[in-house]
Amino acid sequence: MAIETTSINLVTADVLLQNWQGHRRLTRKTIEAFPEDKLFQFSVGDMRTFGEMALELISMAVPVVEGVSTGKWAAFEYRKPESKSELLRLWDIQTAKLNEEFPKISPARFWVVEKAFDQWEMPGIVTIQYTIDNEIHHRGEGYVYLRALGIEPPPFWDRN
Amino acid sequence: MAIETTSINLVTADVLLQNWQGHRRLTRKTIEAFPEDKLFQFSVGDMRTFGEMALELISMAVPVVEGVSTGKWAAFEYRKPESKSELLRLWDIQTAKLNEEFPKISPARFWVVEKAFDQWEMPGIVTIQYTIDNEIHHRGEGYVYLRALGIEPPPFWDRN
Repeated sequence: MAIETTSINLVTADVLLQNWQGHRRLTRKTIEAFPEDKLFQFSVGDMRTFGEMALELISMAVPVVEGVSTGKWAAFEYRKPESKSELLRLWDIQTAKLNEEFPKISPARFWVVEKAFDQWEMPGIVTIQYTIDNEIHHRGEGYVYLRALGIEPPPFWDRN
Repeated sequence: MAIETTSINLVTADVLLQNWQGHRRLTRKTIEAFPEDKLFQFSVGDMRTFGEMALELISMAVPVVEGVSTGKWAAFEYRKPESKSELLRLWDIQTAKLNEEFPKISPARFWVVEKAFDQWEMPGIVTIQYTIDNEIHHRGEGYVYLRALGIEPPPFWDRN
């Protein structure tokens, strides 16, 4: 019984991508909730600003998917956004790119163990899950920044 | 090609549970990192304390798994911990219980849509994923509390 249950499949590639894009919509709303003059200036406890965290998320999402897909782990090249609208524009381009690139991952590649960006040695699916979890983690940090600024963050359950 | 890829199965019930328990080990370390006199007293921006957030996570984990498993969505009954060691003891009991109860979920139950705790109407697997994501989110908030206290949080990648 236990063995039968634990080996059943719960999450398909399609569902994982939909989940991720739901989280990305919430992260986008979190970026939007920051005042222009706080996004790249404000933080708590000497941490990075939420703008810098969002750039980390951008620098991971598509490159991770392309790495898992092709085995080429290339750093993300971009002109650093200097305003909220520039950051959101870059975010939206990556969202569309993710929808294009993710379905190109061939099934076997999810299980190949590779050193992502010369750093994390894991199967492709684990690297992708790590990337999603990392986004949820930093967004949670952003929620505290917003509260510290007296701003109500977007509801956590709203992924539309 | 795209259709073939998106319908492939990425995460089994067993892997999901292992993933979750890895996150729970990191959350436990985050609780441990708080000084005794800050866990239930300190917060940023009028938010809840991390002790209260940890109690929310405890009140969700096993009850969600039992709800998905049995269709009975019972609130978690417990004596409220008043110290870090009491909280960690409760945490550890739930960790063991999760390992017992999770494999009892019959495959079909993951896909049954039910109103969890009279609140969230979703398939079982979505409710479980939401519960895990909620833990990552609140732990991220706890990281900011720790940094605001001048304390280095446990490394995000360490799930041992």
